[in-house]
Amino acid sequence: MGNSFGNFFRISTWGESHGGGIGVVIDGCPPNLPLSAQDDIQPALDRRRPGQSEITTPRKETDTATIVSGVYEGRTLGTPIAITVPNSDHRPEAYTEMKEKFRPSHADYTYQTKYGVRNHEGGGRSSARETIGRVAAGAVAQKALLSRHAGIEVRAYVERIHTLGLEDFGSGEAPIYPFPTLEQVEATPVRCPDTDIAAQMIDRIKEVRSKGDSVGGIIVCRVRGLPVGLGEPVFDRLEAELAKAMLSLPATKAFEFGSGFAGTFMKGSEHNDVFENADGRIRTRTNRSGGSQGGISNGEELYFRIGFKPTATILQPQQTVDLSGAETELIGRGRHDPCVVPRAVPIVEAMTWLVLTDLWMAQQARGPQTA
Amino acid sequence: MGNSFGNFFRISTWGESHGGGIGVVIDGCPPNLPLSAQDDIQPALDRRRPGQSEITTPRKETDTATIVSGVYEGRTLGTPIAITVPNSDHRPEAYTEMKEKFRPSHADYTYQTKYGVRNHEGGGRSSARETIGRVAAGAVAQKALLSRHAGIEVRAYVERIHTLGLEDFGSGEAPIYPFPTLEQVEATPVRCPDTDIAAQMIDRIKEVRSKGDSVGGIIVCRVRGLPVGLGEPVFDRLEAELAKAMLSLPATKAFEFGSGFAGTFMKGSEHNDVFENADGRIRTRTNRSGGSQGGISNGEELYFRIGFKPTATILQPQQTVDLSGAETELIGRGRHDPCVVPRAVPIVEAMTWLVLTDLWMAQQARGPQTA
Amino acid sequence: MGNSFGNFFRISTWGESHGGGIGVVIDGCPPNLPLSAQDDIQPALDRRRPGQSEITTPRKETDTATIVSGVYEGRTLGTPIAITVPNSDHRPEAYTEMKEKFRPSHADYTYQTKYGVRNHEGGGRSSARETIGRVAAGAVAQKALLSRHAGIEVRAYVERIHTLGLEDFGSGEAPIYPFPTLEQVEATPVRCPDTDIAAQMIDRIKEVRSKGDSVGGIIVCRVRGLPVGLGEPVFDRLEAELAKAMLSLPATKAFEFGSGFAGTFMKGSEHNDVFENADGRIRTRTNRSGGSQGGISNGEELYFRIGFKPTATILQPQQTVDLSGAETELIGRGRHDPCVVPRAVPIVEAMTWLVLTDLWMAQQARGPQTA
Amino acid sequence: MGNSFGNFFRISTWGESHGGGIGVVIDGCPPNLPLSAQDDIQPALDRRRPGQSEITTPRKETDTATIVSGVYEGRTLGTPIAITVPNSDHRPEAYTEMKEKFRPSHADYTYQTKYGVRNHEGGGRSSARETIGRVAAGAVAQKALLSRHAGIEVRAYVERIHTLGLEDFGSGEAPIYPFPTLEQVEATPVRCPDTDIAAQMIDRIKEVRSKGDSVGGIIVCRVRGLPVGLGEPVFDRLEAELAKAMLSLPATKAFEFGSGFAGTFMKGSEHNDVFENADGRIRTRTNRSGGSQGGISNGEELYFRIGFKPTATILQPQQTVDLSGAETELIGRGRHDPCVVPRAVPIVEAMTWLVLTDLWMAQQARGPQTA
Repeated sequence: MGNSFGNFFRISTWGESHGGGIGVVIDGCPPNLPLSAQDDIQPALDRRRPGQSEITTPRKETDTATIVSGVYEGRTLGTPIAITVPNSDHRPEAYTEMKEKFRPSHADYTYQTKYGVRNHEGGGRSSARETIGRVAAGAVAQKALLSRHAGIEVRAYVERIHTLGLEDFGSGEAPIYPFPTLEQVEATPVRCPDTDIAAQMIDRIKEVRSKGDSVGGIIVCRVRGLPVGLGEPVFDRLEAELAKAMLSLPATKAFEFGSGFAGTFMKGSEHNDVFENADGRIRTRTNRSGGSQGGISNGEELYFRIGFKPTATILQPQQTVDLSGAETELIGRGRHDPCVVPRAVPIVEAMTWLVLTDLWMAQQARGPQTA
Repeated sequence: MGNSFGNFFRISTWGESHGGGIGVVIDGCPPNLPLSAQDDIQPALDRRRPGQSEITTPRKETDTATIVSGVYEGRTLGTPIAITVPNSDHRPEAYTEMKEKFRPSHADYTYQTKYGVRNHEGGGRSSARETIGRVAAGAVAQKALLSRHAGIEVRAYVERIHTLGLEDFGSGEAPIYPFPTLEQVEATPVRCPDTDIAAQMIDRIKEVRSKGDSVGGIIVCRVRGLPVGLGEPVFDRLEAELAKAMLSLPATKAFEFGSGFAGTFMKGSEHNDVFENADGRIRTRTNRSGGSQGGISNGEELYFRIGFKPTATILQPQQTVDLSGAETELIGRGRHDPCVVPRAVPIVEAMTWLVLTDLWMAQQARGPQTA
Repeated sequence: MGNSFGNFFRISTWGESHGGGIGVVIDGCPPNLPLSAQDDIQPALDRRRPGQSEITTPRKETDTATIVSGVYEGRTLGTPIAITVPNSDHRPEAYTEMKEKFRPSHADYTYQTKYGVRNHEGGGRSSARETIGRVAAGAVAQKALLSRHAGIEVRAYVERIHTLGLEDFGSGEAPIYPFPTLEQVEATPVRCPDTDIAAQMIDRIKEVRSKGDSVGGIIVCRVRGLPVGLGEPVFDRLEAELAKAMLSLPATKAFEFGSGFAGTFMKGSEHNDVFENADGRIRTRTNRSGGSQGGISNGEELYFRIGFKPTATILQPQQTVDLSGAETELIGRGRHDPCVVPRAVPIVEAMTWLVLTDLWMAQQARGPQTA
Repeated sequence: MGNSFGNFFRISTWGESHGGGIGVVIDGCPPNLPLSAQDDIQPALDRRRPGQSEITTPRKETDTATIVSGVYEGRTLGTPIAITVPNSDHRPEAYTEMKEKFRPSHADYTYQTKYGVRNHEGGGRSSARETIGRVAAGAVAQKALLSRHAGIEVRAYVERIHTLGLEDFGSGEAPIYPFPTLEQVEATPVRCPDTDIAAQMIDRIKEVRSKGDSVGGIIVCRVRGLPVGLGEPVFDRLEAELAKAMLSLPATKAFEFGSGFAGTFMKGSEHNDVFENADGRIRTRTNRSGGSQGGISNGEELYFRIGFKPTATILQPQQTVDLSGAETELIGRGRHDPCVVPRAVPIVEAMTWLVLTDLWMAQQARGPQTA
């Protein structure tokens, strides 16, 4: 239970960090779409892949996706699309210590207690490797949704690492930073489109890594070109679905949509987005709502932020307990990702595509509107 | 679509602000529980009810719950429990203006566009009256869960109204304010347990009301006594389910769990919760994780915060457009709730009970653990 | 659990035979449809209602439906449609004996054991009164589907009562009886369109009733005008969904689709439906498939049969056990429906509309086909 | 959509007849169960495998299952169990004709029309190879359920092939044939435990095969040792879930539970199962109910029958149409399974285990019964 996401464009992920591999099954993908592992899925996985730069974990994985079913002669069949990615850089010996000792702020203790058993190697199912399936499925969702509704753009980027960030954060207003291109985001390994701040962020990450420490930060995700009408009140509101999607990612602790917490410092007269007629189209003059009103997209830009805690794996001795409950010390060793936030950018985008595609299908299911 | 919540303890709410009433159907409630509308459900509804104090909307509703099915001779049957609450203080004439004009930052425009039709009276389905069903169902969930696992306490309270708040907020640490009793929360109509700050908050709300304006704020919710093991990774993590639950509430814009956004300013070495053996029980020394690790409860106190924007309804003229798209002005009139945050406290608790009960049932479904 | 049906056009029924009433909540109904309790739902309920004729139970219920939510000014809002029907002819004293004694071939013993509690009055939740919610929802589904795809006809009728039936049954071929009109079905209270056979059936029912006994029979349901493409392989095939829908009805024991059991006596060369081009449309020359191939509608007439056992309630002494497990005798008393089959006809049609509408929405969710 | 089954023990199958392989993902399997592909899954797949005997298709597949995730050091982790089986005996050239021509009574035309595309090789997704995933998952379900509730036996066998069958069929009574052992069922390739009748059945199958023709038949499935209380009224009744499960299998046309269609010829006084106290346990004297009353297991033997039509693939020329709608002739060629019924026996058992395990988990989810 808990390993599927979406109602209509429904994905089921499987796999542990170490073991036969990682995968996803997509049920509900519209048929007759051109789809290629190489061209459509691999680029997304390559963005998520470890070992890409000096600021991420040195784990080496090619993360090569294979489409095993659901595509024939380059087109989706409407049947389940199974995608697999093998695990290759497997070092079980690196995890011997974790077999007995619970790593602080990891899922070791809770998995062990919930299930009475766990694969301790690399975090098993709680590893961020699980998100490979999400990213692969997100790439398919993107392809599917754009085939039906062209012009939607989803762009996530790093807004803050530790204490260093763009000025956008926390104002309660829509981001003032111009909607960046994918190239601008990818220009630096830290995936912050402002190259000056990106350089500082990279330095900060290197600095904490040199001390065996870690940092977190904030990703903002923005969506343009959405039609009005996506979101299923009352429980499956657009922002509720996104909140769940984002808080289902490892290391996330916070989510805000539109004006977020900053908006709670405003008065209604300051916060409301008045409507206007902009060349025949109903628009809001400001966008503190973040592109959704009553849980339904209103055609304005969506923007939301996700807070990631500092990576729990640090290369410093930490007090903990072992399987028997005895207190002991854990000596951090091995590979270590001092900051997961940059690599989470394509994952956030993938979850966003999954949510949007699912809600688009929900809206379609009603059939064409009749008067 | 979108009107059900939960997988095992599954609720379906129905009803609009004005019309035949509001209700909920609960499927999956364990059988043979004592359950009384008067004793178990009404007290929760009374906390949510409008017109309770000088700082809320003067709408008069008794919000009297009737259990129509699923209970026989005072005990749950295991069959669907239908609960209805009639609408009584119905003033359709108060909404004539809204029939044609979209209220800024309300759901009028998006509902109209999504569905091609709407009940404009009092916001229709997007009204906070819809949450009556949630509160009633939450009371049943509470009863059910406590019958199976005694000692769980869920306590929400107002932590900040506009700029006035407890000092807890934003430190990244677990709340320092002592876990309050229900009586302490209910001592003032603003539902902040610190009576001095509560008095200031009440003044602030009265002040903005006098200007036809509104304010928002933050609710913190805390849970004690949870067993280890609730939460279904990877998508239905404890915090993901709570995030969805909270962002599905009207006027919510933000959610943070445990250390939240403040935690993103910490380093891993500062943020990690080391384990210890406290008199034979595995505990964490600190609780920045907020009671969940890897999406599964770890037995520590759960705490999470929800940001509510200022109420969109204000009694000031605002620019907008009408159904035809023409620009016009909306003159705010009628009843008006200058701050919904205090009334949202029991709603937040209800959603929390619903999430916990559902996840408890998921864990039970696996049957007793065997070795 | 178990009280909802459908994925897109999703209904949740509630209510026991005796108690506050019976109802249904429909989530997913397309918006902006004209819908009237009086004109659209009541006629269907009136067909199901007891006390309509000399051959059914004399229980008197008006079964008056009220739409409590989801419709505004005569049109569906796209929000949940709650429909309630009160219970009125309530005679708890008639059920005193059943409080202690389990009626043979009823659900008394299994409900008591599963839930540890039950409402023994009139069968509680296991009563056929529960199907009121289905019939009401089916009427809405019919309205919704026809608004999107005109020309679909669903017609069920009684094909056999006890040993008396039309000649169609059991040949493995499509029904030779001409697709009847609603009026032809409703011409007699037994709902068999052949008036001669209907008269014999009525005599048979009166005969068994006079002896306090009961009989069962077979309903055939036929559907014309379906588009090609409904059904979601592999698990949610058209015939699988119909099978579940029909076997979820009280007193059903058997389901066959197309050639059914008779088809198992044929050879492939006899059974296959060859394709032909009939004036530009691909058709099958015969229709042993029953209108579905591979679980997807093929545009031919759907036909399927449902077997109903004889009513378990009989007015004869029967041996049984009581709550304590002691053997005892049950003296049948009170109202008694000697044959439920005729009243099940509108219920079968309702379930069929629910299945078809749900599958139609599933197909729509993929969006318009692109090449 | 449509490729998952079960609510708690939830499986998602994927794969086409020709392509990368076939697989299943199981979500919700209880943790800490010993599980081995070799010992637990392969034996079930071997029973389903083609090419086992002279009376099935000569397609050669080893159907070797690999557990790719969810099992660690021989025990289930509680995480998704992914199982894959490669396709090996791939002969795309054998299917050239089918690329253009629709095979009568196959799913070619409906898949093509529903999805606008199809994999014509070997039937693609509509192939019976898809059931590999079900059989593998059924083996896991069996292991899981027996670990929680020992003593449940599920035994299916062939009751009739074409016109040749055991005498049990059609009496309306519980099978008189003694509950066979697995060995008795497996004694002959036709999987009828009566060796005399089995020999006749084998002759019949060989006879039709020699003419390029095919036959169908009936499988009966019996379950002993079930606890009272499985089944979730009103929609997810035990027999409704089984009906859906069975009608979701390729080539099925009919399902009957307990007395089935034969029971419709009885009177209530003949059909009712009176209760008795058998050495302290409440039993029914007869078992026309088939082990379920009101949709809930009553502790008696479950029995139900499934009708399979004759295989649609025959090696005789048949009239049909091509993709353009033009009439043409299809010359049957290649491999051909003259009777799928014997190979469906383990598939029926697998689906039964899946249903029972899922319903067992639903009942567990309520927690221990309290008074």
